[in-house]
Amino acid sequence: MEVSAARRAGLVLIVFACSGLLHGSRGENSPQPTGGVTLLPPVVADDGPQAFPDAEKANMPVFTMDYPRIQIPFEITMWVLLASFAKIGFHVYNKITVWVPESCLLITIGLMVGAIMHSVHEEPPAVLSSNVFFLYMLPPIVLDSGYFMPTRPFFENIGTVLWFAVVGTLWNSIGIGMSLFAICQIEAFGVQDINLQENLLFATIISAVDPVAVLSVFEDVSVNEQLYIVVFGECLFNDAVTVVLYNMFNFVAEMPVVEPVDVFLGVARFFVVGLGGMGFGVLFGFTAAFTTRFTSRVREIEPLFIFMYSYLAYLVAELFAISSIMAIVTCALTMKYYVEENVSQRSCTTIRHVVKMLGSISETLIFFFLGVVTITTEHEWNWGYIVFTLLFALVWRGLGVLVLTQIINPFRTIPFNMKDQFGLAYGGLRGAISFALVFTLPDTIVRKQLFVTATICVILFTVFIQVRGGDSTRDVLRCSFIFSTKAGLDVCFVCFVCFVCFVCVS
Amino acid sequence: MEVSAARRAGLVLIVFACSGLLHGSRGENSPQPTGGVTLLPPVVADDGPQAFPDAEKANMPVFTMDYPRIQIPFEITMWVLLASFAKIGFHVYNKITVWVPESCLLITIGLMVGAIMHSVHEEPPAVLSSNVFFLYMLPPIVLDSGYFMPTRPFFENIGTVLWFAVVGTLWNSIGIGMSLFAICQIEAFGVQDINLQENLLFATIISAVDPVAVLSVFEDVSVNEQLYIVVFGECLFNDAVTVVLYNMFNFVAEMPVVEPVDVFLGVARFFVVGLGGMGFGVLFGFTAAFTTRFTSRVREIEPLFIFMYSYLAYLVAELFAISSIMAIVTCALTMKYYVEENVSQRSCTTIRHVVKMLGSISETLIFFFLGVVTITTEHEWNWGYIVFTLLFALVWRGLGVLVLTQIINPFRTIPFNMKDQFGLAYGGLRGAISFALVFTLPDTIVRKQLFVTATICVILFTVFIQVRGGDSTRDVLRCSFIFSTKAGLDVCFVCFVCFVCFVCVS
Repeated sequence: MEVSAARRAGLVLIVFACSGLLHGSRGENSPQPTGGVTLLPPVVADDGPQAFPDAEKANMPVFTMDYPRIQIPFEITMWVLLASFAKIGFHVYNKITVWVPESCLLITIGLMVGAIMHSVHEEPPAVLSSNVFFLYMLPPIVLDSGYFMPTRPFFENIGTVLWFAVVGTLWNSIGIGMSLFAICQIEAFGVQDINLQENLLFATIISAVDPVAVLSVFEDVSVNEQLYIVVFGECLFNDAVTVVLYNMFNFVAEMPVVEPVDVFLGVARFFVVGLGGMGFGVLFGFTAAFTTRFTSRVREIEPLFIFMYSYLAYLVAELFAISSIMAIVTCALTMKYYVEENVSQRSCTTIRHVVKMLGSISETLIFFFLGVVTITTEHEWNWGYIVFTLLFALVWRGLGVLVLTQIINPFRTIPFNMKDQFGLAYGGLRGAISFALVFTLPDTIVRKQLFVTATICVILFTVFIQVRGGDSTRDVLRCSFIFSTKAGLDVCFVCFVCFVCFVCVS
Repeated sequence: MEVSAARRAGLVLIVFACSGLLHGSRGENSPQPTGGVTLLPPVVADDGPQAFPDAEKANMPVFTMDYPRIQIPFEITMWVLLASFAKIGFHVYNKITVWVPESCLLITIGLMVGAIMHSVHEEPPAVLSSNVFFLYMLPPIVLDSGYFMPTRPFFENIGTVLWFAVVGTLWNSIGIGMSLFAICQIEAFGVQDINLQENLLFATIISAVDPVAVLSVFEDVSVNEQLYIVVFGECLFNDAVTVVLYNMFNFVAEMPVVEPVDVFLGVARFFVVGLGGMGFGVLFGFTAAFTTRFTSRVREIEPLFIFMYSYLAYLVAELFAISSIMAIVTCALTMKYYVEENVSQRSCTTIRHVVKMLGSISETLIFFFLGVVTITTEHEWNWGYIVFTLLFALVWRGLGVLVLTQIINPFRTIPFNMKDQFGLAYGGLRGAISFALVFTLPDTIVRKQLFVTATICVILFTVFIQVRGGDSTRDVLRCSFIFSTKAGLDVCFVCFVCFVCFVCVS
């Protein structure tokens, strides 16, 4: 018995719209719940809602309602549940996901819900533009990738991974930044007020290949394990470079003079961030492994240690502003084999399943909210800047892969051929991390809205075109010819998205 | 290789003390985190902590620290992790848990940590005295009990369960309330300002048999399945009565005149609360069962539906101020068999394990925080009132079980014998729900602190004496003779606890 995906999608939309209407405006953070009771005192405050107020106020009420008390957990539960429905909906009607990847569908549904919320002047929950993303939504995804990373192939390719992660990200950031600065000098585009440092800062944000987006393309390791390892490893380990470059350019943007010692400190900071992240990861990984030696009598809480230690590694790295992604990935890589030997079979199954579950639902929510906030955010459009951003993002990625592969291939046992390089270049997707980072730019940057719009365009472009292209990559790797027909569908999607953005801007 | 429990306990204490000292005072809720960055902007605000500030402020910092941003998830993770360590510690040195149940150990450790925090003037996190308890800590435990309740025996005993839950709780509340009011008339005790309504309100709070505490005694269904079902069912289903009585006496305490229509409305409310709770539970249970028919392609998120629907049932019941415990238990009972047929084997294992895990860690945290806030709360001691509260709680429970059993036995296939009745009476433990409820009493009640102290005493008494007595119950049921030696140990514990309370009060 199949429920048509269209009907289900419609149901999801209606529920979203209703929830959007019902739950009122939510700004950055909802008001703190005060100490309350399980049981509503019958004498309710005058502003408390009552579903069926009694005729005489003095009598004991039989029906009462108290929404603010449960607002936060209720809304979180509703969003998670509705994201899960969306996933079911996509898969119930199987052919949809053959033509259009899940990430694109999610963004599209997000765009529609965002449009509905925007039209009724509702604020979406501040998920991607605040700590919620970095502290609660990103860790499960990164843990998922780290925990299921095949360890041996990973360490066999560690040199290549670090090469692309460090040098590749530097290449992209500086290349894109300089090119955009050159574009800014052209008066016709009207962006002369963006200086070099701001361009470099923006370039850093959009250079980082994103694990969330890459997961959509390289879901299946068996496509090409070498490729998967390198792209995935790159997107996890370039966080260290992104952190340092972001800090450096942010700092430099506010300082009139850049001294040589600052460059040296930047390099020093890179080692602190990278090695510090890995150090904490290894520390917590071994601690988790050690702890599971003593859990033979408390089997029911064994999985908890894995989650707590990984999360702690992430948080401690955040505390010291070092690479939290590297910390949690290294922690997962370190502890995995020891833990799976120590814990019971049921705990092992539970850990794997829960890690996958949390990663999956986080990814779904992120793509969905990407769509929602695309509509509800204020945009600033500039054809020249945005088109060239897209162009340079592609060109520098492609060039970078080409050049770097030429240099690294002699050192590899299995050199990358042209197909692999195509896959590497195409697999460089940008996603929610760039989006969240651009929101955290200081408000002193005048053209912040333009950067936000440009980042969204890059993300949507890579997810809609390149993800389909990623499927094409898989097809190319498998020598199939579906590329041309699917590209047609993609063009339609991109046009639709551009149209929507343009409408919002106007 | 065994690490002595004493050393581990010492380590736990030191870690707790350090975390208590390090993390500063935490009031009701910590300040909201503002939108932040993964990457700390190098130019930190003057009030931002920096671990190793550079000599010249103008240079890029290499080490930075930003604690407020991660404070909430970090502290939650630390408390959960340390509670887990405590559980490991108890079980590593096996003999401890033979003599002293885990709940007592946890409360004791909580008392010690509370003493340390009190001495350095630290506020413990407001876990038991706010929404956190009812919205986040109680649902996992109740879900655990509901999910693993043996369904057939439960429905075979449903009449007895409801009989004890409804009539038994009414009997206890009114009996204890009236008796305490009689005590209040005696001038010597100095509690004449507590009127009848306040006494009844307090009696309602301490009458409710608590699922958290009962879990400690009746961990093992095989001890006596009938007994387990009845006590457990009672403690889950008396929530409806508690909700209504609490509301009613709260309402009445503020109204000078009680009209007959209010009594009628109270009865009506009971049916709304009870049947409404069950209704929502059944609704969400069937919705969950139906949803899992379509999850064959999204196996990784199957467990999520179970958790989300159960939690939603709880929250919606809370929204309408009806019995949320009944809602979530009914939901779990309804959906369990359908869901376990529909989902994959791995999802099934994961669901069971995660439910047990969350219930276990919630229970651990609750007992622990019971100990902590026992010390850090302000108390008001009154020998007369408190001793008589303890006495009446025991006497009315015993009498109630006796009388109610005599009435219900003719209707039972397997009547309760004297041992069973002893077990039923002894199994009536009070726990954290009473504690959380007493905190939510309105501040207009003058002797609120006395009620808090009295509730704590009842809880500690039942947990320390009766839990051991519960083990004795098991032993009595198995005809063993360990009772006398263990009772001696219990007396020591109670003396210790009383001494600690007295010190705090003075």
